[in-house]
Amino acid sequence: MKLQNLAKIAAVATLTVSALSASYTMAADGKVYRLTMAETWNANFPIFGDAPRNMARIADEMSGGRLKITIDSANKHKAPLGVFDLVRSGQYDMGHSASYYWKGKVPNTLYFTTMPFGMTTPEQYGWFYYGGGQSLMNKVYEPFGLLSFPGGNTGNQMGGWFQKEINSVEDLQGLKMRIPGFAGEVLAKLGAKPTNIASGELFTALERRTIDALEWVGPSLDLRMGFHKIAPYYYTGWHEPATELQFLVNARTWKKLPDDLREILRTAMRVSSYDMYIQSYHESAENWATMKQEFPDIQVKTFPESVMKAMYKANQELLAEKASEDPLAKEILDSQAEYLAKARVWTNISDRAYLDSLDNLED
Amino acid sequence: MKLQNLAKIAAVATLTVSALSASYTMAADGKVYRLTMAETWNANFPIFGDAPRNMARIADEMSGGRLKITIDSANKHKAPLGVFDLVRSGQYDMGHSASYYWKGKVPNTLYFTTMPFGMTTPEQYGWFYYGGGQSLMNKVYEPFGLLSFPGGNTGNQMGGWFQKEINSVEDLQGLKMRIPGFAGEVLAKLGAKPTNIASGELFTALERRTIDALEWVGPSLDLRMGFHKIAPYYYTGWHEPATELQFLVNARTWKKLPDDLREILRTAMRVSSYDMYIQSYHESAENWATMKQEFPDIQVKTFPESVMKAMYKANQELLAEKASEDPLAKEILDSQAEYLAKARVWTNISDRAYLDSLDNLED
Repeated sequence: MKLQNLAKIAAVATLTVSALSASYTMAADGKVYRLTMAETWNANFPIFGDAPRNMARIADEMSGGRLKITIDSANKHKAPLGVFDLVRSGQYDMGHSASYYWKGKVPNTLYFTTMPFGMTTPEQYGWFYYGGGQSLMNKVYEPFGLLSFPGGNTGNQMGGWFQKEINSVEDLQGLKMRIPGFAGEVLAKLGAKPTNIASGELFTALERRTIDALEWVGPSLDLRMGFHKIAPYYYTGWHEPATELQFLVNARTWKKLPDDLREILRTAMRVSSYDMYIQSYHESAENWATMKQEFPDIQVKTFPESVMKAMYKANQELLAEKASEDPLAKEILDSQAEYLAKARVWTNISDRAYLDSLDNLED
Repeated sequence: MKLQNLAKIAAVATLTVSALSASYTMAADGKVYRLTMAETWNANFPIFGDAPRNMARIADEMSGGRLKITIDSANKHKAPLGVFDLVRSGQYDMGHSASYYWKGKVPNTLYFTTMPFGMTTPEQYGWFYYGGGQSLMNKVYEPFGLLSFPGGNTGNQMGGWFQKEINSVEDLQGLKMRIPGFAGEVLAKLGAKPTNIASGELFTALERRTIDALEWVGPSLDLRMGFHKIAPYYYTGWHEPATELQFLVNARTWKKLPDDLREILRTAMRVSSYDMYIQSYHESAENWATMKQEFPDIQVKTFPESVMKAMYKANQELLAEKASEDPLAKEILDSQAEYLAKARVWTNISDRAYLDSLDNLED
């Protein structure tokens, strides 16, 4: 090869490289990053499983294929409630789950999903992103080498399917109900018997009255479970007004990513979480219409005021206990209570007043 | 320079280029894309101005500096209500504005911002993203070589500041109110006198009673206008339950972008729009608390049922006219009405029932 030709190649190649490096300044390198994620859900679980897949697809497309995230479902990794440890240990780079599942291990993780009598979805996102919630969540997760981010919201969950009406606090005595977590503790304080039953057995348990009631999510996910076919009462929600799922990221993985991919990952998680809220809203509206058409006799009920008051009192007592035992718990609960108080006044004069003012318009 | 050295440079340069091109497979090229955007707002306009700036920053960071968007405010380009034309002509690549500003030019743009008695914010996002709204918006904008996307939501807007109470439809007769757009048409049908006044003159006009009332946004943006200092009644909203701003993109610009940057732009617009909804919610909660503290006598009022019914009837009549004049208007309005009917049933048994059930808990 002649000298001139080599010189020409070198010149062109150098030009191309500098053009590229000028424009990719913030990309630390040209590597393809392959991350693994463990989700708490089984394969093909709708909505909850869509959020991480949408996230991974958006991240892949935005990075031009430089950020590849593969997702293992619970039926593969076999540890639906072990996702925290799988990510902490680095066995997986990321997880998709819900913060309150870790309360037995790290009590303060309880507060970052939803709380009985707590904030609605826009109120809670306000707290996360503009009211200090995200930095409190960081405080809880950092000691474990983990980052936690909002992972998609179900919207307001229904209070559950009941075989009999609840007319008084006495009706809660001995009530066998599948209701896990903190809300179960609230009901237990009032004499109910919260039980946990594998999801595949719930239908039969409710049908044969092994249990008197159960809560699942809301029409978005209840329809396929078929509960509306076997229980006449669908109670409105009090215990999970804004259930937010969670993306977990191992801090070492996070640090290894170049700036641009870190921003791509952060944004892909954030947008797919918001999208899951809207998808849940949409599916709930659609599925409730379907249920109501197939079973027009379903009765939507709200717990009477006496029951609501008793549950609220039990809830406040349990929260006061937790706050007194742990300064960080107190800091989180105070932050939430203060935010809720301000935000709820606004909710009441905006969306709620609007909805109230529309009754009877067509008379 | 010696032959070996040149050969070495060529080899290294070629290696680097191929390593980069292997990992940047979906990036059509290494160019830096510099886009311009015209916004309807003046410089330093809070919240509305934050959304496009957040969008541009996220796009810049995610693209590693390959997508640069510079924003010109109205005080620079001098055409706040000319953004549609500025983007259509290609004078700017993008715009940030609101779809209903173009109703005089393209009547069917009216329906993609918010409608009196229409959907709330999560309902409307459901319609945009899962209920066919985005594809109807495409139908309206495509003939003009434009793409339109949601551009940030204000949440439920307040009905406005009034110098006197509205107790009956008669009280609307001759009422001079600053209320632009379609809601102004509704009020005009009932005998009110909608007027338009430049924003800088609104305070004085309301204070000197040149006008009897005005609507602006809600506490998020009303606080700095100072209306709460001079008008005693703050009415709840009916006319803009979910005002969505708009990102406009010139279709030629969109086509020129490589796949990864297009996805980055799409996602940056989507996430910054959701974020503006949450930011508005937060600022409204904060600012309403401030107003109420400084002026505890502000009275929050809802229009009486007779007035709501009259406004609703006038609204329905105006919509029926529009639907009868244009098949695409009919298609959009039918789609919205059908979606609203399903989504509202869900809203009522979820968030609304929840909020209703919390009254009097602490008695």
